[in-house]
Amino acid sequence: MYKVKVLVKRRPSILDPQGKAVEKGAFHLGLTNIKDTRIGKYIEFMVDTGDKAAAEKEVNDYCYKLLANPIMEDYEFTLEPADSEGGN
Amino acid sequence: MYKVKVLVKRRPSILDPQGKAVEKGAFHLGLTNIKDTRIGKYIEFMVDTGDKAAAEKEVNDYCYKLLANPIMEDYEFTLEPADSEGGN
Repeated sequence: MYKVKVLVKRRPSILDPQGKAVEKGAFHLGLTNIKDTRIGKYIEFMVDTGDKAAAEKEVNDYCYKLLANPIMEDYEFTLEPADSEGGN
Repeated sequence: MYKVKVLVKRRPSILDPQGKAVEKGAFHLGLTNIKDTRIGKYIEFMVDTGDKAAAEKEVNDYCYKLLANPIMEDYEFTLEPADSEGGN
């Protein structure tokens, strides 16, 4: 069993209108030093296998096919063994 | 100038229907070992001040008022000096 944490970010060259909008809200609340806000995703999940290579392959497939949009987003992940009873 | 990275996660006790839905998609793609998917947010931005305490206060305000929903989400952040020309 592995615990996986994934970060999905837009490529630096792609505009982030959501970040811009939230930052404008911050400005109006008086938080005037905030710049360059970019909003991405953070995903956590478990992979229920004892084989690290198989787990990495499954994570890559999951990220590429579902979690990220490979046209405009990059992803990175960390994978670490989870201590679970009986889960290997 | 500080570079800030924020993670926003739903509290463990709060259901995550988006994660459940994406995971179902994974299952139908043959990724059958993925469990307990939870989807949160990852936000990066800069704080344009040289005073670390002021930067932290501004980041907390930003997270609490705009980035996270404090009723059902928790946030954590890291703040590190950014080497920028003339910032600071």
